[in-house]
Amino acid sequence: MHRHFEEDLSDLKQKLLTMGSLVERALHQAVKALVERDAQLGLQIFEGEEAINLLQIEIDDRAMRLLALQQPMATDLRLIASAVKINNDLERIGDLCVNIAQRVLSLINQPPISPMIDMPRMAALAEKMLHDGLDAFVNRNADLARTVLESDDKVDRLRDDIFQELVRFMTTHPDAVQRGIDLLLISRNIERVADHATNIAEDVIYVVAGRDVRHHIEETIRPN
Amino acid sequence: MHRHFEEDLSDLKQKLLTMGSLVERALHQAVKALVERDAQLGLQIFEGEEAINLLQIEIDDRAMRLLALQQPMATDLRLIASAVKINNDLERIGDLCVNIAQRVLSLINQPPISPMIDMPRMAALAEKMLHDGLDAFVNRNADLARTVLESDDKVDRLRDDIFQELVRFMTTHPDAVQRGIDLLLISRNIERVADHATNIAEDVIYVVAGRDVRHHIEETIRPN
Repeated sequence: MHRHFEEDLSDLKQKLLTMGSLVERALHQAVKALVERDAQLGLQIFEGEEAINLLQIEIDDRAMRLLALQQPMATDLRLIASAVKINNDLERIGDLCVNIAQRVLSLINQPPISPMIDMPRMAALAEKMLHDGLDAFVNRNADLARTVLESDDKVDRLRDDIFQELVRFMTTHPDAVQRGIDLLLISRNIERVADHATNIAEDVIYVVAGRDVRHHIEETIRPN
Repeated sequence: MHRHFEEDLSDLKQKLLTMGSLVERALHQAVKALVERDAQLGLQIFEGEEAINLLQIEIDDRAMRLLALQQPMATDLRLIASAVKINNDLERIGDLCVNIAQRVLSLINQPPISPMIDMPRMAALAEKMLHDGLDAFVNRNADLARTVLESDDKVDRLRDDIFQELVRFMTTHPDAVQRGIDLLLISRNIERVADHATNIAEDVIYVVAGRDVRHHIEETIRPN
């Protein structure tokens, strides 16, 4: 029975990593489609969505079965609960990639817009946060997870810069309002990707250190 | 031991309902602040945020302890897992109310903008969805939960109408770009409130009927 549990748990982790790599790929495609104005790449994201959705449900099912049949304790329980949350965050990132792709397809039908300087930087940062969050999960690396939390502030600053720049641009170029809004919504979606990557990093810290760092209450130590 | 479990479970549900009513109040305040341009009400939402965040963590803790100490089976397990998810959705709605309040405070410093016809309707719909989702949870009413799923399509249509209307307005009134964007982001936040209410309704259906209705795969019946 115990060996069985270890196998099932390792299987759950493996599925979650597959989910992570599908979502990482979707994010990479979305950012590339934006920067290179590549409609084909945008369409690939729609095609990949179903696999992500189905895998989310499969992971949830496996986690629930582990909880129901194996009655895990302490550390394992924390791991399974976090797997469910990370799974949820990954699926949301997948949704956000679809939203980004929709906006990219709209943008490609319009003339290019110049004030995009910070957008690829913001996107690259969000990509790195997701990658590091997943890496921290695999390697149980709470320090790496903490760097993800720090990056989230940078993303928020870039979002504010882009916001101000786009408002100025649209005000002086009313014919570019539609394009400006497309870009604005893309930057919001990227920001939300970063938020979900932050959630994942918080879960890693919770699993590894048993601390809840949500809402900046790291001082509080949870009962095991 | 068994009586203890029933008590703890009922306590968990009670806490979740408290969380639900805090979040419902925040949403109601946010919508009212928007419609009545009431800065005072907007500020109250910031003040209420911490209580919501703390309650989220407390509910998560209780759910984890129930899982760890009581080893619940089938129906109870499904209920506890859904409580964790609903808790998460409620906290996100709380965040969205804070975002809405920030935009409302920005709007109040600018002249009023006329194309807001559908916004109060959309907000009222999202409020009803949240209320019905929570009501369905309390009364284990899967039919009521299903009406919430239907309303989500209406919200999406209103969002699209508002979007088109605001783009047209900003294009012809470039001096109103900032206001237009504030309203646009509010409408996106309301849409996301509706999405979270939909998640809650899906969880209710899962708890009551044991069916997973995410991603429109209602035909699939989960193993208990």
